[in-house]
Amino acid sequence: MQINPNNPIGVFDSGVGGLTVVRALMERLPFEHIEYFGDTARVPYGVKSVETIAHYTTQIAQFLLERQVKLLIIACNTMASVSAQVVRDLSPVPVLDVIEAGALAALAASQSRRIGVIGTPTTINSNAYARAIHEVEPDARVVSQACALFVPLVEEGWLDHPVTRLTAQEYLKPVLAERVDTLVLGCTHYPLLKPLLADVTGPQTTLVDSAEAMAERTAALLTDLNLHTPARAPADYHFHVTDVPLRFQTIGERFLGRSLNNVHVVKW
Amino acid sequence: MQINPNNPIGVFDSGVGGLTVVRALMERLPFEHIEYFGDTARVPYGVKSVETIAHYTTQIAQFLLERQVKLLIIACNTMASVSAQVVRDLSPVPVLDVIEAGALAALAASQSRRIGVIGTPTTINSNAYARAIHEVEPDARVVSQACALFVPLVEEGWLDHPVTRLTAQEYLKPVLAERVDTLVLGCTHYPLLKPLLADVTGPQTTLVDSAEAMAERTAALLTDLNLHTPARAPADYHFHVTDVPLRFQTIGERFLGRSLNNVHVVKW
Repeated sequence: MQINPNNPIGVFDSGVGGLTVVRALMERLPFEHIEYFGDTARVPYGVKSVETIAHYTTQIAQFLLERQVKLLIIACNTMASVSAQVVRDLSPVPVLDVIEAGALAALAASQSRRIGVIGTPTTINSNAYARAIHEVEPDARVVSQACALFVPLVEEGWLDHPVTRLTAQEYLKPVLAERVDTLVLGCTHYPLLKPLLADVTGPQTTLVDSAEAMAERTAALLTDLNLHTPARAPADYHFHVTDVPLRFQTIGERFLGRSLNNVHVVKW
Repeated sequence: MQINPNNPIGVFDSGVGGLTVVRALMERLPFEHIEYFGDTARVPYGVKSVETIAHYTTQIAQFLLERQVKLLIIACNTMASVSAQVVRDLSPVPVLDVIEAGALAALAASQSRRIGVIGTPTTINSNAYARAIHEVEPDARVVSQACALFVPLVEEGWLDHPVTRLTAQEYLKPVLAERVDTLVLGCTHYPLLKPLLADVTGPQTTLVDSAEAMAERTAALLTDLNLHTPARAPADYHFHVTDVPLRFQTIGERFLGRSLNNVHVVKW
């Protein structure tokens, strides 16, 4: 199959969190068109079963493939951790996922090979980050911690709040006790907590933002496959969501870091 | 339509929270059969749009009506606040909802007619509790507060945790400043936070548990309509869910207060 470099990049997530990946892509690759899909009616995925997540993931990937994307980016850690292979099996275009991007960035950043990973319960229980890190570096020590409350705290807007700080201290205590030198923010919501988490972990720990890691991986892949768009005009961005919930615009813009236009509702 | 008193009571919720209502019903009406529906694949509803909630609610009500329930109980505050009328319009059997039950119980408990209501953002923004209270008592002062983090805190099991206490203090500060004498726990998850909330509000505030209020309303309605089951054998309980997520059994049993059997998965 011949892939057209003018085609958009497809990015998907269970909700608005993947907009942190879109934001990083807009900054790193400003001429690339992007089609985003956020399954806002069925979010969050982090508490659903593996079968249900695989079923929803397939539906979304097919939607974006019908829109002629040149590349699929799984921006949702939960989907990447339990159903990346499902997407790779069905996709005629390349597939990147945040887990792989985050794991590789962590390995590049870590000196001590002691790496912490935080994410939703489903992501952590899937053990996908540890597997991805161990594939490259079998001797690395990976300390994982589920942080179920971070997503609701971010969505409440308590980005720098005593409750969030106390919650972070509680979750990170066992991780820091293992003297990790790198901490992977294994959920697209967590970049918004970066300043607070940096405060809690201290300067001796490098935080790996998987949105930024993904933008780097995407740029490298487009170069490898000669798929950068030749266009030098402003890019088109389209945002497909399954619901427009309360405060969607506010929360979405907080993630995207700019105004959110071209929002299309898909009813399934 | 002649309703058979031997038929089960249908109870539904967006997830496991409605099991607090089932628990109150089991205690108050031990011989009544119960068919429970929890939409665990699509939970939480509190962040979805009104149209989506109405669509899901209709689907669930029809499912239970096909199972010949003699009464429908909307145990989910979010569904009750935005789509109770949708259910009443389609149901040939009586419909009770937690908002009405909670509002009536609050009016019975309050001396000062200054009533606080806490719930999910969608429930609070719908203003449904204030409307239900004002219908009976137009001069009552209703102070509402959305508490988006309480559901995730309960599901994390942090029922008596410093983070939960700090969160409760933050949310309740403006409510207590209005000197309410009664506080409606307007979400089925909140009964599990009752001891902590009672501590934060102090003894001068009566907490209204909408699960208990609903069990009382149900008993009264069955008496009024002569619909109590004549059976004196152990009742049958069936639990229909759209997904069996991680930790479902643990969390479900925490809500139900006993072991959870007869769980059936419905795939939509």
